[in-house]
Amino acid sequence: MEERTATMKKERMPLNGVDVPTLFATIDAVRQQPDLARFQFRASNRWVSGTHSQSRIETFAGAGAEHRHVTTVQFDADHPQVLVGLDQGPTPVEFLLVALASCLTAGIGNIAAARGIPLKEVESTITGNMDLRGVLGLSDEVRNGYENIRVEFKIKGDAPPEKLREVVEQSRARSAVFDIVTNGVPVEINVNAG
Amino acid sequence: MEERTATMKKERMPLNGVDVPTLFATIDAVRQQPDLARFQFRASNRWVSGTHSQSRIETFAGAGAEHRHVTTVQFDADHPQVLVGLDQGPTPVEFLLVALASCLTAGIGNIAAARGIPLKEVESTITGNMDLRGVLGLSDEVRNGYENIRVEFKIKGDAPPEKLREVVEQSRARSAVFDIVTNGVPVEINVNAG
Repeated sequence: MEERTATMKKERMPLNGVDVPTLFATIDAVRQQPDLARFQFRASNRWVSGTHSQSRIETFAGAGAEHRHVTTVQFDADHPQVLVGLDQGPTPVEFLLVALASCLTAGIGNIAAARGIPLKEVESTITGNMDLRGVLGLSDEVRNGYENIRVEFKIKGDAPPEKLREVVEQSRARSAVFDIVTNGVPVEINVNAG
Repeated sequence: MEERTATMKKERMPLNGVDVPTLFATIDAVRQQPDLARFQFRASNRWVSGTHSQSRIETFAGAGAEHRHVTTVQFDADHPQVLVGLDQGPTPVEFLLVALASCLTAGIGNIAAARGIPLKEVESTITGNMDLRGVLGLSDEVRNGYENIRVEFKIKGDAPPEKLREVVEQSRARSAVFDIVTNGVPVEINVNAG
């Protein structure tokens, strides 16, 4: 078993679009110097009109430095017309579903590559159910957010189904957004009004 | 006080881009028929390569019907280069920040309008701090997700600062994404592997 591990280490090579040797080198670097693991992600938001706002993602800090994304992106968010918005963009709760699906899928890409499993296809649909009596202030017994979220993955690759399922499970176990969404995070809000 | 409330009801009119009469009519309709409050939001995701995936937001269900957004949007998400991605889009955890900022801001737009407060400007920056030793599997004492999130609002409008702060506070108290992110939601993951 140890010999096999040694052999696999020698064979580490890019797979599924993941630079596996650099990925492991990065993990080793952080193991040696834990401060490199400190990251701060950021977004800025500007109200446009009604429930419509624009968010920008531009810079972040991590691995001891400031970074700028290759491309600055801007997202419109709004409430849908049935909720008296103008539907100038997705609803905020839909961005949360994008965050969760894309985090799990990024993890699947990395983990499958690290395990030497060539992926052919990873697709998912994600749904969140909500009773709007919460946000509308019509019931104190109904929460504001999703009651539950369900993710359905379809995954194909050069490995037995059980190995593919293990990749998804490991991604879940190490997903930042899954942790945030299932366990919650303290949020501090400060207001400069005038 | 009752008289004043009656007067204000008569004066309800569109403000800040919010169709206030329709907003209140919608709330009244849901009060009469609570089933209308049941919504399901959805996204689909497709792995592209490495940690890069594309998410689409297209349809949702609610108020007893199926709906299609005015525009179907597609979002690229990826890990940044310093984390061995190709930075083909924002990091999943950044989409989560967009979800939270845009939800709080949409609520501010609605609540200020409902209270007859003309808004001039609402801007926010949102930051999330994370120790990546969690997601990299280097420490079991470090969580995968954000340790904390901070939102800084700057709000201007035709009302005393205290009234503007109350609008932000009421938005927080009824925000779907704030509830999800601070309190957590059960997430079920199913895998079809083959």
